[in-house]
Amino acid sequence: MSDLLITSPANPRLKSLAALRRRRGREETRTTLVEGHEELALALDCGIRPATLFVCPELFSPGGPAGLQVIGLQEDVVTRARTLGAEVVRLGRQAFEKVAYREGADGLLAVVPAVDPTLLALDARGIAELSARPLLLVSQGVEKPGNLGAMLRTADAAGVAAVVAADPVTDWGNPNVVRASKGTVFSVPVASATTSETLAWLGRHGIPLVVTTPETDLLYTDVDLSGRVAVVVGAEKHGVDQQVLEAAAYRVRIPMLGRANSLNVAASAAIVVYEAVRQRTRA
Amino acid sequence: MSDLLITSPANPRLKSLAALRRRRGREETRTTLVEGHEELALALDCGIRPATLFVCPELFSPGGPAGLQVIGLQEDVVTRARTLGAEVVRLGRQAFEKVAYREGADGLLAVVPAVDPTLLALDARGIAELSARPLLLVSQGVEKPGNLGAMLRTADAAGVAAVVAADPVTDWGNPNVVRASKGTVFSVPVASATTSETLAWLGRHGIPLVVTTPETDLLYTDVDLSGRVAVVVGAEKHGVDQQVLEAAAYRVRIPMLGRANSLNVAASAAIVVYEAVRQRTRA
Repeated sequence: MSDLLITSPANPRLKSLAALRRRRGREETRTTLVEGHEELALALDCGIRPATLFVCPELFSPGGPAGLQVIGLQEDVVTRARTLGAEVVRLGRQAFEKVAYREGADGLLAVVPAVDPTLLALDARGIAELSARPLLLVSQGVEKPGNLGAMLRTADAAGVAAVVAADPVTDWGNPNVVRASKGTVFSVPVASATTSETLAWLGRHGIPLVVTTPETDLLYTDVDLSGRVAVVVGAEKHGVDQQVLEAAAYRVRIPMLGRANSLNVAASAAIVVYEAVRQRTRA
Repeated sequence: MSDLLITSPANPRLKSLAALRRRRGREETRTTLVEGHEELALALDCGIRPATLFVCPELFSPGGPAGLQVIGLQEDVVTRARTLGAEVVRLGRQAFEKVAYREGADGLLAVVPAVDPTLLALDARGIAELSARPLLLVSQGVEKPGNLGAMLRTADAAGVAAVVAADPVTDWGNPNVVRASKGTVFSVPVASATTSETLAWLGRHGIPLVVTTPETDLLYTDVDLSGRVAVVVGAEKHGVDQQVLEAAAYRVRIPMLGRANSLNVAASAAIVVYEAVRQRTRA
Protein backbone atom coordinates (compact mmCIF):
# COMPACT_ATOMS: atom_id res chain seq x y z
CA MET A 1 0.00 0.00 0.00
CA SER A 2 1.42 3.38 -0.92
CA ASP A 3 1.56 6.25 1.55
CA LEU A 4 -1.16 8.87 1.79
CA LEU A 5 -0.19 11.99 -0.17
CA ILE A 6 -1.40 15.46 0.81
CA THR A 7 -0.70 18.40 -1.45
CA SER A 8 -3.23 20.98 -0.28
CA PRO A 9 -2.01 23.23 2.55
CA ALA A 10 -5.70 23.53 3.56
CA ASN A 11 -6.07 19.80 4.32
CA PRO A 12 -7.78 19.29 7.72
CA ARG A 13 -5.06 16.92 8.93
CA LEU A 14 -2.56 19.72 8.65
CA LYS A 15 -4.79 21.96 10.73
CA SER A 16 -4.81 19.44 13.56
CA LEU A 17 -1.02 19.44 13.31
CA ALA A 18 -0.92 23.20 13.72
CA ALA A 19 -2.86 22.77 16.98
CA LEU A 20 0.16 20.93 18.42
CA ARG A 21 2.17 24.11 18.29
CA ARG A 22 0.01 25.34 21.13
CA ARG A 23 0.43 23.99 24.64
CA ARG A 24 -3.26 23.28 24.97
CA GLY A 25 -3.28 21.18 21.83
CA ARG A 26 -0.33 19.17 23.14
CA GLU A 27 -1.90 18.65 26.54
CA GLU A 28 -5.24 17.55 25.12
CA THR A 29 -3.71 14.99 22.78
CA ARG A 30 -0.71 14.07 24.94
CA THR A 31 1.46 14.31 21.85
CA THR A 32 4.07 16.69 20.57
CA LEU A 33 5.98 17.49 17.37
CA VAL A 34 9.52 16.58 16.46
CA GLU A 35 11.10 18.04 13.36
CA GLY A 36 14.37 17.22 11.64
CA HIS A 37 16.35 14.03 11.06
CA GLU A 38 18.84 14.63 13.88
CA GLU A 39 16.16 15.13 16.54
CA LEU A 40 14.03 12.27 15.21
CA ALA A 41 16.92 9.83 15.04
CA LEU A 42 17.70 10.49 18.70
CA ALA A 43 14.03 10.14 19.66
CA LEU A 44 13.91 6.75 17.88
CA ASP A 45 17.17 5.72 19.59
CA CYS A 46 15.48 6.47 22.90
CA GLY A 47 12.50 4.23 22.17
CA ILE A 48 10.00 6.85 21.05
CA ARG A 49 7.39 5.43 18.63
CA PRO A 50 5.97 8.14 16.36
CA ALA A 51 2.25 7.95 15.61
CA THR A 52 2.61 9.74 12.29
CA LEU A 53 5.61 10.82 10.25
CA PHE A 54 5.05 13.57 7.69
CA VAL A 55 7.67 13.55 4.97
CA CYS A 56 8.49 15.78 2.05
CA PRO A 57 11.20 14.05 0.02
CA GLU A 58 11.61 17.19 -2.12
CA LEU A 59 13.17 18.80 0.94
CA PHE A 60 15.60 15.91 1.55
CA SER A 61 18.36 17.97 -0.04
CA PRO A 62 20.01 20.34 2.37
CA GLY A 63 23.06 22.29 1.32
CA GLY A 64 26.32 21.90 3.15
CA PRO A 65 29.23 19.55 2.67
CA ALA A 66 27.39 16.56 4.12
CA GLY A 67 24.35 17.00 1.86
CA LEU A 68 24.35 13.59 0.22
CA GLN A 69 24.99 11.79 3.44
CA VAL A 70 22.12 13.63 5.13
CA ILE A 71 19.62 12.37 2.55
CA GLY A 72 20.57 8.84 3.55
CA LEU A 73 20.03 9.71 7.20
CA GLN A 74 16.59 11.09 6.43
CA GLU A 75 15.58 7.98 4.53
CA ASP A 76 16.88 5.87 7.39
CA VAL A 77 14.60 7.73 9.82
CA VAL A 78 11.60 7.07 7.55
CA THR A 79 12.40 3.36 7.39
CA ARG A 80 12.87 3.07 11.13
CA ALA A 81 9.67 4.98 11.93
CA ARG A 82 7.72 2.82 9.48
CA THR A 83 9.10 -0.34 11.08
CA LEU A 84 7.92 0.95 14.47
CA GLY A 85 4.39 1.22 13.09
CA ALA A 86 4.24 4.93 12.26
CA GLU A 87 1.82 6.04 9.60
CA VAL A 88 3.86 7.78 6.91
CA VAL A 89 2.16 10.70 5.15
CA ARG A 90 3.77 12.37 2.17
CA LEU A 91 3.29 16.12 1.87
CA GLY A 92 3.77 18.37 -1.11
CA ARG A 93 6.33 21.10 -0.58
CA GLN A 94 3.78 23.85 0.00
CA ALA A 95 1.85 21.71 2.44
CA PHE A 96 5.03 20.75 4.36
CA GLU A 97 6.26 24.29 4.57
CA LYS A 98 2.96 25.31 6.06
CA VAL A 99 3.33 22.87 8.97
CA ALA A 100 7.10 23.06 9.45
CA TYR A 101 7.96 25.31 12.36
CA ARG A 102 11.55 26.03 11.60
CA GLU A 103 13.60 27.60 8.86
CA GLY A 104 15.55 25.24 6.68
CA ALA A 105 13.05 22.40 7.15
CA ASP A 106 14.55 19.07 6.08
CA GLY A 107 11.31 17.30 5.15
CA LEU A 108 10.70 15.31 8.34
CA LEU A 109 8.07 16.09 10.97
CA ALA A 110 6.61 13.55 13.38
CA VAL A 111 3.80 13.43 15.89
CA VAL A 112 5.11 11.55 18.92
CA PRO A 113 3.74 10.70 22.38
CA ALA A 114 4.54 13.48 24.85
CA VAL A 115 7.21 12.72 27.42
CA ASP A 116 5.70 12.27 30.88
CA PRO A 117 7.31 15.09 32.77
CA THR A 118 6.25 14.36 36.35
CA LEU A 119 8.28 13.77 39.49
CA LEU A 120 6.26 10.57 39.94
CA ALA A 121 7.56 9.36 36.58
CA LEU A 122 11.12 10.08 37.73
CA ASP A 123 10.42 8.03 40.86
CA ALA A 124 9.00 5.20 38.79
CA ARG A 125 12.31 5.12 36.92
CA GLY A 126 14.26 5.25 40.19
CA ILE A 127 16.16 8.32 39.01
CA ALA A 128 17.27 9.48 42.43
CA GLU A 129 18.48 5.97 43.34
CA LEU A 130 20.07 4.92 40.05
CA SER A 131 23.41 6.12 41.25
CA ALA A 132 24.83 6.67 44.70
CA ARG A 133 25.60 10.21 43.69
CA PRO A 134 23.16 11.46 41.08
CA LEU A 135 23.80 14.87 39.54
CA LEU A 136 20.57 16.75 38.88
CA LEU A 137 19.86 20.05 37.20
CA VAL A 138 16.93 22.17 38.36
CA SER A 139 15.80 25.36 36.67
CA GLN A 140 13.31 27.72 38.24
CA GLY A 141 10.97 29.86 36.15
CA VAL A 142 12.99 29.69 32.97
CA GLU A 143 11.13 31.44 30.14
CA LYS A 144 12.84 30.77 26.87
CA PRO A 145 12.42 27.45 25.08
CA GLY A 146 15.89 27.90 23.60
CA ASN A 147 17.42 28.05 27.07
CA LEU A 148 15.58 24.95 28.30
CA GLY A 149 16.69 23.14 25.16
CA ALA A 150 20.32 24.19 25.52
CA MET A 151 20.27 23.06 29.16
CA LEU A 152 19.02 19.66 28.06
CA ARG A 153 21.89 19.28 25.58
CA THR A 154 24.31 20.13 28.36
CA ALA A 155 22.56 17.72 30.73
CA ASP A 156 22.75 14.92 28.16
CA ALA A 157 26.42 15.56 27.48
CA ALA A 158 27.29 15.79 31.17
CA GLY A 159 25.45 12.61 32.15
CA VAL A 160 22.96 14.47 34.34
CA ALA A 161 20.43 12.04 35.85
CA ALA A 162 17.39 14.30 35.37
CA VAL A 163 16.40 17.89 34.66
CA VAL A 164 13.53 19.36 36.66
CA ALA A 165 11.83 22.56 35.55
CA ALA A 166 10.27 24.23 38.58
CA ASP A 167 7.48 26.62 37.61
CA PRO A 168 8.59 26.76 33.99
CA VAL A 169 6.94 29.25 31.66
CA THR A 170 7.02 26.74 28.82
CA ASP A 171 6.40 22.99 28.70
CA TRP A 172 8.89 20.30 27.72
CA GLY A 173 6.78 19.42 24.67
CA ASN A 174 7.12 22.91 23.17
CA PRO A 175 8.47 22.30 19.66
CA ASN A 176 11.08 24.99 20.19
CA VAL A 177 12.35 23.17 23.29
CA VAL A 178 12.48 19.92 21.33
CA ARG A 179 14.38 21.64 18.55
CA ALA A 180 16.83 23.52 20.77
CA SER A 181 17.43 20.31 22.71
CA LYS A 182 18.38 18.51 19.46
CA GLY A 183 16.11 15.73 20.64
CA THR A 184 17.78 15.29 24.06
CA VAL A 185 14.39 15.94 25.65
CA PHE A 186 13.89 12.25 24.82
CA SER A 187 17.23 11.03 26.18
CA VAL A 188 17.35 12.95 29.46
CA PRO A 189 14.67 12.24 32.09
CA VAL A 190 12.73 15.48 32.63
CA ALA A 191 10.00 16.70 34.94
CA SER A 192 8.02 19.86 35.57
CA ALA A 193 6.52 20.71 38.92
CA THR A 194 5.87 23.65 41.16
CA THR A 195 8.79 24.95 43.17
CA SER A 196 7.29 23.60 46.40
CA GLU A 197 6.83 20.15 44.90
CA THR A 198 10.38 20.19 43.54
CA LEU A 199 11.90 21.17 46.87
CA ALA A 200 9.85 18.54 48.69
CA TRP A 201 10.91 15.88 46.19
CA LEU A 202 14.60 16.77 46.53
CA GLY A 203 14.26 16.73 50.31
CA ARG A 204 12.56 13.36 50.28
CA HIS A 205 15.44 11.91 48.28
CA GLY A 206 18.07 13.58 50.43
CA ILE A 207 19.53 15.55 47.54
CA PRO A 208 21.10 18.85 48.65
CA LEU A 209 20.66 21.98 46.52
CA VAL A 210 23.57 24.02 45.23
CA VAL A 211 21.93 27.24 44.12
CA THR A 212 23.53 29.79 41.81
CA THR A 213 22.95 33.40 42.82
CA PRO A 214 24.99 36.59 42.68
CA GLU A 215 24.24 37.20 46.38
CA THR A 216 27.01 35.17 47.96
CA ASP A 217 30.78 35.13 48.27
CA LEU A 218 31.15 31.38 47.87
CA LEU A 219 32.48 30.36 44.47
CA TYR A 220 30.90 27.36 42.71
CA THR A 221 34.39 25.89 42.38
CA ASP A 222 34.82 25.87 46.17
CA VAL A 223 31.93 23.51 46.82
CA ASP A 224 32.02 19.72 46.65
CA LEU A 225 29.86 18.79 43.68
CA SER A 226 31.01 15.19 43.49
CA GLY A 227 28.26 13.68 45.66
CA ARG A 228 24.46 13.65 45.46
CA VAL A 229 23.61 17.14 44.34
CA ALA A 230 21.07 19.25 42.46
CA VAL A 231 22.50 22.29 40.69
CA VAL A 232 19.83 25.01 40.63
CA VAL A 233 19.69 27.95 38.23
CA GLY A 234 17.07 30.69 38.16
CA ALA A 235 14.99 32.54 35.62
CA GLU A 236 16.53 34.74 32.94
CA LYS A 237 15.63 38.04 34.57
CA HIS A 238 15.29 37.56 38.28
CA GLY A 239 17.21 34.38 39.16
CA VAL A 240 15.92 32.04 41.83
CA ASP A 241 13.36 33.15 44.40
CA GLN A 242 13.56 33.36 48.18
CA GLN A 243 12.00 29.93 48.70
CA VAL A 244 14.79 28.29 46.70
CA LEU A 245 17.51 30.37 48.37
CA GLU A 246 16.25 29.23 51.77
CA ALA A 247 16.29 25.58 50.70
CA ALA A 248 19.91 25.79 49.49
CA ALA A 249 22.62 23.70 51.13
CA TYR A 250 25.06 26.07 49.43
CA ARG A 251 24.53 29.33 47.61
CA VAL A 252 27.28 29.73 45.06
CA ARG A 253 28.25 32.34 42.55
CA ILE A 254 30.03 32.28 39.24
CA PRO A 255 32.73 34.96 39.20
CA MET A 256 31.66 37.97 37.13
CA LEU A 257 34.63 40.02 36.02
CA GLY A 258 32.91 42.16 33.39
CA ARG A 259 30.60 45.12 33.08
CA ALA A 260 27.28 43.45 32.36
CA ASN A 261 26.99 41.13 35.34
CA SER A 262 24.88 38.65 33.49
CA LEU A 263 25.45 35.23 32.07
CA ASN A 264 22.94 33.46 29.90
CA VAL A 265 21.12 30.94 32.13
CA ALA A 266 22.07 28.00 29.89
CA ALA A 267 25.72 29.13 30.01
CA SER A 268 25.56 29.32 33.83
CA ALA A 269 24.11 25.83 33.97
CA ALA A 270 26.83 24.51 31.65
CA ILE A 271 29.60 26.07 33.74
CA VAL A 272 28.45 24.62 37.06
CA VAL A 273 27.37 21.23 35.72
CA TYR A 274 30.73 20.74 34.01
CA GLU A 275 32.56 21.74 37.17
CA ALA A 276 30.67 18.85 38.77
CA VAL A 277 31.82 16.57 35.94
CA ARG A 278 35.40 17.75 36.46
CA GLN A 279 35.26 17.03 40.17
CA ARG A 280 33.66 13.64 39.59
CA THR A 281 36.31 12.69 37.05
CA ARG A 282 39.04 13.50 39.55
CA ALA A 283 37.28 11.94 42.53
CA MET B 1 12.69 72.76 21.58
CA SER B 2 10.44 69.75 21.80
CA ASP B 3 11.34 66.44 20.24
CA LEU B 4 10.21 65.44 16.76
CA LEU B 5 7.11 63.22 16.93
CA ILE B 6 6.36 60.59 14.28
CA THR B 7 3.07 58.75 14.37
CA SER B 8 2.82 57.35 10.84
CA PRO B 9 4.38 53.91 10.38
CA ALA B 10 4.96 54.93 6.73
CA ASN B 11 7.29 57.82 7.63
CA PRO B 12 10.46 57.71 5.47
CA ARG B 13 12.75 57.96 8.50
CA LEU B 14 11.37 54.67 9.73
CA LYS B 15 12.12 53.07 6.38
CA SER B 16 15.77 54.05 6.63
CA LEU B 17 15.74 52.42 10.06
CA ALA B 18 14.43 49.18 8.62
CA ALA B 19 17.42 49.18 6.25
CA LEU B 20 19.71 48.77 9.29
CA ARG B 21 18.27 45.35 9.92
CA ARG B 22 20.14 44.24 6.83
CA ARG B 23 23.89 43.83 6.86
CA ARG B 24 24.32 45.93 3.75
CA GLY B 25 22.43 48.81 5.31
CA ARG B 26 24.67 48.62 8.38
CA GLU B 27 27.86 48.47 6.35
CA GLU B 28 26.91 51.39 4.12
CA THR B 29 26.04 53.66 7.01
CA ARG B 30 28.56 52.26 9.51
CA THR B 31 25.81 52.25 12.12
CA THR B 32 23.73 49.64 13.88
CA LEU B 33 20.63 49.37 16.05
CA VAL B 34 20.43 48.87 19.79
CA GLU B 35 17.09 48.15 21.41
CA GLY B 36 16.12 48.00 25.07
CA HIS B 37 17.14 49.93 28.18
CA GLU B 38 19.53 47.27 29.47
CA GLU B 39 21.52 47.03 26.24
CA LEU B 40 21.50 50.80 25.75
CA ALA B 41 22.60 51.56 29.30
CA LEU B 42 25.62 49.27 28.84
CA ALA B 43 26.41 50.84 25.45
CA LEU B 44 26.35 54.30 27.06
CA ASP B 45 28.52 53.04 29.95
CA CYS B 46 31.03 51.92 27.33
CA GLY B 47 31.24 55.35 25.71
CA ILE B 48 28.92 54.76 22.76
CA ARG B 49 27.27 57.99 21.56
CA PRO B 50 23.94 57.32 19.83
CA ALA B 51 23.14 59.41 16.76
CA THR B 52 19.40 59.06 17.23
CA LEU B 53 17.26 57.63 19.99
CA PHE B 54 13.71 56.62 19.09
CA VAL B 55 11.43 56.53 22.11
CA CYS B 56 7.87 55.45 22.71
CA PRO B 57 6.99 56.41 26.30
CA GLU B 58 3.71 54.49 26.00
CA LEU B 59 5.80 51.32 26.03
CA PHE B 60 7.76 52.36 29.15
CA SER B 61 5.60 50.04 31.23
CA PRO B 62 6.81 46.48 31.25
CA GLY B 63 5.22 43.95 33.51
CA GLY B 64 7.22 42.15 36.15
CA PRO B 65 8.00 42.95 39.73
CA ALA B 66 10.51 45.67 38.87
CA GLY B 67 8.12 47.48 36.52
CA LEU B 68 8.16 50.87 38.14
CA GLN B 69 11.88 50.84 38.61
CA VAL B 70 12.39 49.96 34.95
CA ILE B 71 10.51 53.07 33.82
CA GLY B 72 13.03 55.13 35.75
CA LEU B 73 15.86 53.29 34.04
CA GLN B 74 14.35 53.98 30.64
CA GLU B 75 14.00 57.68 31.38
CA ASP B 76 17.58 57.71 32.61
CA VAL B 77 18.77 56.29 29.29
CA VAL B 78 16.88 59.02 27.41
CA THR B 79 18.46 61.73 29.55
CA ARG B 80 21.96 60.33 29.18
CA ALA B 81 21.62 59.91 25.40
CA ARG B 82 20.31 63.46 25.05
CA THR B 83 23.23 64.80 27.08
CA LEU B 84 25.62 63.00 24.74
CA GLY B 85 24.06 64.87 21.81
CA ALA B 86 21.63 62.24 20.50
CA GLU B 87 18.63 63.44 18.57
CA VAL B 88 15.55 62.14 20.40
CA VAL B 89 12.56 61.21 18.20
CA ARG B 90 9.24 60.26 19.75
CA LEU B 91 7.27 57.58 17.98
CA GLY B 92 3.62 56.66 18.29
CA ARG B 93 3.02 53.11 19.41
CA GLN B 94 2.15 51.79 15.96
CA ALA B 95 5.18 53.45 14.45
CA PHE B 96 7.49 52.10 17.17
CA GLU B 97 6.18 48.59 16.88
CA LYS B 98 6.88 48.68 13.19
CA VAL B 99 10.58 49.39 13.74
CA ALA B 100 11.12 47.36 16.91
CA TYR B 101 12.76 44.05 16.11
CA ARG B 102 11.97 42.16 19.24
CA GLU B 103 8.92 41.03 21.13
CA GLY B 104 8.16 42.89 24.31
CA ALA B 105 9.70 46.12 23.03
CA ASP B 106 10.33 48.55 25.89
CA GLY B 107 10.12 51.77 23.90
CA LEU B 108 13.82 52.45 23.32
CA LEU B 109 15.67 51.99 20.03
CA ALA B 110 18.87 53.77 19.09
CA VAL B 111 21.02 54.17 16.02
CA VAL B 112 24.64 53.95 17.15
CA PRO B 113 28.01 53.94 15.40
CA ALA B 114 29.04 50.40 14.46
CA VAL B 115 31.81 48.84 16.49
CA ASP B 116 35.03 48.58 14.47
CA PRO B 117 35.54 44.84 14.38
CA THR B 118 39.00 44.56 12.85
CA LEU B 119 42.17 42.94 14.10
CA LEU B 120 43.88 46.27 13.41
CA ALA B 121 41.51 47.93 15.84
CA LEU B 122 42.39 45.33 18.47
CA ASP B 123 46.07 46.12 17.85
CA ALA B 124 45.43 49.84 18.17
CA ARG B 125 43.97 49.12 21.61
CA GLY B 126 46.94 46.89 22.49
CA ILE B 127 44.61 44.02 23.32
CA ALA B 128 47.22 41.29 23.03
CA GLU B 129 49.66 43.25 25.20
CA LEU B 130 47.30 44.63 27.84
CA SER B 131 47.99 41.69 30.04
CA ALA B 132 50.91 39.29 30.28
CA ARG B 133 48.44 36.45 29.88
CA PRO B 134 45.43 37.53 27.87
CA LEU B 135 42.56 35.06 27.53
CA LEU B 136 40.96 35.24 24.09
CA LEU B 137 37.94 33.53 22.61
CA VAL B 138 37.86 32.68 18.91
CA SER B 139 34.86 31.25 17.10
CA GLN B 140 35.06 29.87 13.60
CA GLY B 141 32.11 29.97 11.21
CA VAL B 142 29.46 30.43 13.87
CA GLU B 143 26.06 30.91 12.23
CA LYS B 144 23.53 31.92 14.81
CA PRO B 145 23.40 35.48 16.13
CA GLY B 146 22.07 34.12 19.44
CA ASN B 147 25.18 32.00 19.89
CA LEU B 148 27.56 34.87 19.11
CA GLY B 149 25.63 37.03 21.56
CA ALA B 150 25.68 34.42 24.32
CA MET B 151 29.43 33.97 23.81
CA LEU B 152 29.90 37.70 24.26
CA ARG B 153 28.02 37.66 27.56
CA THR B 154 30.26 34.84 28.73
CA ALA B 155 33.35 36.67 27.49
CA ASP B 156 32.32 39.82 29.35
CA ALA B 157 31.62 37.93 32.56
CA ALA B 158 34.87 35.95 32.34
CA GLY B 159 37.06 38.97 31.66
CA VAL B 160 38.05 37.75 28.19
CA ALA B 161 40.36 40.27 26.48
CA ALA B 162 38.75 39.98 23.04
CA VAL B 163 36.47 37.79 20.97
CA VAL B 164 37.43 37.14 17.37
CA ALA B 165 34.90 35.72 14.90
CA ALA B 166 36.76 33.92 12.13
CA ASP B 167 34.68 33.60 8.97
CA PRO B 168 31.44 34.37 10.81
CA VAL B 169 28.16 33.97 8.96
CA THR B 170 26.76 37.05 10.68
CA ASP B 171 28.29 40.43 11.56
CA TRP B 172 28.78 41.87 15.04
CA GLY B 173 26.32 44.67 14.25
CA ASN B 174 23.45 42.26 13.60
CA PRO B 175 20.65 43.49 15.90
CA ASN B 176 20.07 39.92 17.08
CA VAL B 177 23.72 39.66 18.13
CA VAL B 178 23.44 42.97 19.97
CA ARG B 179 20.30 41.80 21.70
CA ALA B 180 21.54 38.33 22.62
CA SER B 181 24.75 39.93 23.89
CA LYS B 182 22.72 42.18 26.23
CA GLY B 183 24.91 45.01 24.97
CA THR B 184 28.23 43.32 25.79
CA VAL B 185 29.18 43.70 22.12
CA PHE B 186 30.06 47.23 23.28
CA SER B 187 32.00 46.20 26.39
CA VAL B 188 34.09 43.34 24.96
CA PRO B 189 36.61 44.12 22.20
CA VAL B 190 35.54 42.16 19.11
CA ALA B 191 36.90 41.52 15.64
CA SER B 192 35.92 39.62 12.53
CA ALA B 193 38.47 38.32 10.03
CA THR B 194 39.10 35.38 7.79
CA THR B 195 40.46 32.25 9.42
CA SER B 196 43.87 32.80 7.81
CA GLU B 197 44.07 36.37 9.07
CA THR B 198 43.02 35.26 12.55
CA LEU B 199 45.63 32.51 12.73
CA ALA B 200 48.33 34.88 11.44
CA TRP B 201 47.34 37.50 14.01
CA LEU B 202 47.44 35.03 16.90
CA GLY B 203 50.81 33.74 15.68
CA ARG B 204 52.21 37.26 15.44
CA HIS B 205 51.24 37.91 19.05
CA GLY B 206 52.53 34.54 20.24
CA ILE B 207 49.14 33.40 21.49
CA PRO B 208 48.76 29.60 21.39
CA LEU B 209 45.44 28.07 20.32
CA VAL B 210 43.54 25.61 22.47
CA VAL B 211 41.01 24.16 20.05
CA THR B 212 37.87 22.25 21.08
CA THR B 213 37.13 19.21 18.95
CA PRO B 214 35.69 15.76 19.58
CA GLU B 215 38.70 14.22 17.78
CA THR B 216 41.16 14.02 20.65
CA ASP B 217 41.65 12.24 23.94
CA LEU B 218 43.00 15.25 25.80
CA LEU B 219 40.48 16.78 28.21
CA TYR B 220 40.16 20.57 28.36
CA THR B 221 40.72 20.34 32.11
CA ASP B 222 44.14 18.72 31.58
CA VAL B 223 45.62 21.68 29.72
CA ASP B 224 47.17 24.77 31.29
CA LEU B 225 44.81 27.62 30.43
CA SER B 226 46.32 30.09 32.88
CA GLY B 227 48.78 31.72 30.47
CA ARG B 228 48.43 33.51 27.14
CA VAL B 229 45.81 31.51 25.31
CA ALA B 230 43.07 31.64 22.71
CA VAL B 231 40.20 29.21 23.27
CA VAL B 232 38.78 28.23 19.87
CA VAL B 233 35.30 26.83 19.22
CA GLY B 234 33.86 25.81 15.87
CA ALA B 235 30.64 26.21 13.92
CA GLU B 236 27.35 24.75 15.12
CA LYS B 237 27.30 21.89 12.65
CA HIS B 238 30.80 21.01 11.64
CA GLY B 239 33.10 22.38 14.34
CA VAL B 240 36.48 23.84 13.42
CA ASP B 241 38.13 23.10 10.09
CA GLN B 242 41.43 21.40 9.26
CA GLN B 243 43.33 24.68 9.04
CA VAL B 244 42.45 25.51 12.63
CA LEU B 245 43.16 21.98 13.88
CA GLU B 246 46.62 22.19 12.35
CA ALA B 247 47.32 25.52 14.02
CA ALA B 248 46.35 24.19 17.46
CA ALA B 249 48.88 24.05 20.28
CA TYR B 250 46.44 21.69 21.99
CA ARG B 251 43.33 19.96 20.72
CA VAL B 252 41.03 19.39 23.65
CA ARG B 253 37.66 17.78 24.14
CA ILE B 254 34.83 18.31 26.58
CA PRO B 255 33.73 14.94 27.96
CA MET B 256 30.49 13.77 26.38
CA LEU B 257 28.73 11.21 28.51
CA GLY B 258 25.33 11.24 26.81
CA ARG B 259 23.61 10.01 23.68
CA ALA B 260 23.52 13.13 21.55
CA ASN B 261 27.21 13.99 21.45
CA SER B 262 26.56 17.65 20.95
CA LEU B 263 26.86 20.69 23.12
CA ASN B 264 25.57 24.07 22.08
CA VAL B 265 28.59 26.08 20.86
CA ALA B 266 27.97 28.87 23.38
CA ALA B 267 27.77 26.30 26.17
CA SER B 268 31.08 24.77 25.01
CA ALA B 269 32.70 28.19 25.01
CA ALA B 270 31.37 28.91 28.51
CA ILE B 271 32.68 25.61 29.89
CA VAL B 272 36.22 26.05 28.59
CA VAL B 273 36.49 29.78 29.24
CA TYR B 274 35.36 29.32 32.84
CA GLU B 275 37.82 26.49 33.32
CA ALA B 276 40.45 29.07 32.33
CA VAL B 277 39.00 31.47 34.92
CA ARG B 278 39.13 28.72 37.55
CA GLN B 279 42.76 27.96 36.79
CA ARG B 280 43.69 31.64 36.80
CA THR B 281 41.98 32.20 40.13
CA ARG B 282 44.00 29.36 41.67
CA ALA B 283 47.28 30.28 39.98
